Amino acid sequence: MIRAQGYATQNAQSPLAPFAFDRRDPGEHDVVIAISHCGICHSDIHQARGEWGNSIYPMVPGHEIVGHVKAVGKGVTKFREGDRVGVGCFVDSCRVCGSCQEGLEQYCASGMIATYNGIERDGKTPTFGGYSDVLVTDESYVLRVPMSLDPAAVAPLLCAGITTYSPLRHWKVGPGQRVAVVGLGGLGHMGVKFAAALGAEVTVISTSTRKEADARRLGANHFLVSTDPSAVASAAGSFDFILDTVSASHDVNALIGTLRRDGTLVLVGAPEKPLEIGAFGLLLGRRRFAGSAIGGIKETQEMLDYCGERGIVSDVEVIPIQQVNEAYERTVKGDVRYRFVIDMKSLSA
Amino acid sequence: MIRAQGYATQNAQSPLAPFAFDRRDPGEHDVVIAISHCGICHSDIHQARGEWGNSIYPMVPGHEIVGHVKAVGKGVTKFREGDRVGVGCFVDSCRVCGSCQEGLEQYCASGMIATYNGIERDGKTPTFGGYSDVLVTDESYVLRVPMSLDPAAVAPLLCAGITTYSPLRHWKVGPGQRVAVVGLGGLGHMGVKFAAALGAEVTVISTSTRKEADARRLGANHFLVSTDPSAVASAAGSFDFILDTVSASHDVNALIGTLRRDGTLVLVGAPEKPLEIGAFGLLLGRRRFAGSAIGGIKETQEMLDYCGERGIVSDVEVIPIQQVNEAYERTVKGDVRYRFVIDMKSLSA
Repeated sequence: MIRAQGYATQNAQSPLAPFAFDRRDPGEHDVVIAISHCGICHSDIHQARGEWGNSIYPMVPGHEIVGHVKAVGKGVTKFREGDRVGVGCFVDSCRVCGSCQEGLEQYCASGMIATYNGIERDGKTPTFGGYSDVLVTDESYVLRVPMSLDPAAVAPLLCAGITTYSPLRHWKVGPGQRVAVVGLGGLGHMGVKFAAALGAEVTVISTSTRKEADARRLGANHFLVSTDPSAVASAAGSFDFILDTVSASHDVNALIGTLRRDGTLVLVGAPEKPLEIGAFGLLLGRRRFAGSAIGGIKETQEMLDYCGERGIVSDVEVIPIQQVNEAYERTVKGDVRYRFVIDMKSLSA
Repeated sequence: MIRAQGYATQNAQSPLAPFAFDRRDPGEHDVVIAISHCGICHSDIHQARGEWGNSIYPMVPGHEIVGHVKAVGKGVTKFREGDRVGVGCFVDSCRVCGSCQEGLEQYCASGMIATYNGIERDGKTPTFGGYSDVLVTDESYVLRVPMSLDPAAVAPLLCAGITTYSPLRHWKVGPGQRVAVVGLGGLGHMGVKFAAALGAEVTVISTSTRKEADARRLGANHFLVSTDPSAVASAAGSFDFILDTVSASHDVNALIGTLRRDGTLVLVGAPEKPLEIGAFGLLLGRRRFAGSAIGGIKETQEMLDYCGERGIVSDVEVIPIQQVNEAYERTVKGDVRYRFVIDMKSLSA
């Protein structure tokens, strides 16, 4: 076994604290990754605090993982020692269902194996995430990270990046389209960067004007304040596509009204309470309301390569792991522009 | 002016009663239609009773209209005296917006002019519907009805037919697909006929087994009772497409769970209260929840021609207009298999 150092939470009430645990010895197809950075995703907080009701403790969160290959199993063909690599939200899946075979492992019929707070395919071994110094993962679930990009700023691409890139590509967003991104947080700021890079005319929809300058700097052409009913009304029927990144309860109905005929609103945030959707807003315009979850390995690699070519990364605030609990508090308050990333060197500080 | 005889309601509380009114003299592009039959759509009842808050009285309902051409304006090129024709839910639209130019007049940016309970493009003349003996309509909004079909049984195609045909075609339902039709009423029974004709494997989802034999006779391969949680659970992830025809409040979330990855549930009924939709059901499977409203003139004609080739009509109970109030009561109770159609000869009885 490989001894790992990390930060874990022992139950829903406890803060994260130092934690030592074992990683498996690398199997034939495994890659041993020395983790350099890990992003803090809002879902880390939900699960660390038991808010989704599915928590397994002790929990080492973290699924926006960047590092380099330290060792490889003898059957590994895609990676070698020293390669810069990443791991996202899952580390395994059934590999045989239709979704897995189409490279959409996130929709695996048996359920993907989450990078943390999951159970390995053996049915018993808990998975531990990226708030740690080392990870052992099957090479099929490891991504190649372009050397040209700052690794700290790459980390959030593994979740926030692919979560927004995937629906923009799946629904074929591109030049000539008017796209709205709702919410300017970890997901939203990546959505704006990608939608702009793909050539769309981008509007950021936010609850106040507080982030307007940022939105424009990130690539938005327009800014709309969702709490101003006349502004929302004036946008009626105007967007081809809406990427809704808000995970708090919010008025999706009003947003659906801003779609053009045959337009789609895709939810990538996950509000806990059901959303109230009126039938007429969908009927009168053949509008669609959809969801999308992260992305498969193939598309995540495509996104990383795309980011490498265009120099796209996340806007991050890098912290030592000793500040993780404070970072959680600030993330909950939306006080981060736009993602905290833990510098894992701090573990041995 | 042309004197018309019909049945109207004078306010939200009154029953329908005989009513004489004027139709315009036919203009250059108008067709004068002698109405032989008109279907009773549930939306007639909602509007006659003021339940949608948009009612204009007196109101002559009816938008499932079949008859023959009695006279034509001198500029009319598509029709001549004696032709069997139909009129559906709208009799005009702006004709210049993108949707109108694409033949999707039902989504006209200025709003289609409803066949009844609407206001003509002059901004003042109320429209009166098909519970009457004569209609004067611009030829561009008149459909050709195949002579091979029973005109009484054709009438519901003009609303219930096109409302179900259009989404099945738009979402490309066909052989190899598993399709569910939710609710077996006026809309649902047409949905089953069309989905089966298009080659899909059809499941009817209904609240009880009461209509199972009918469902199979209409073309369904399977029957699922929505009030049986284990039956619904066993259908998880199984449908490519769901046509939801229910206009009462119902558990759309449970239905979304029966969609496959990338599947779409299309609502064609119009529940008054907002529907509660959970985010996870959409996210975990990239599922879509959409709406669809009737169909444009071009597609309605395509549907009528398709029905003519295949002998598809509605299952109807033909009544004299004197029984219209009783028919309303029975429609509200779901006591009709599957559409009431008024025989307009009865007006002069």
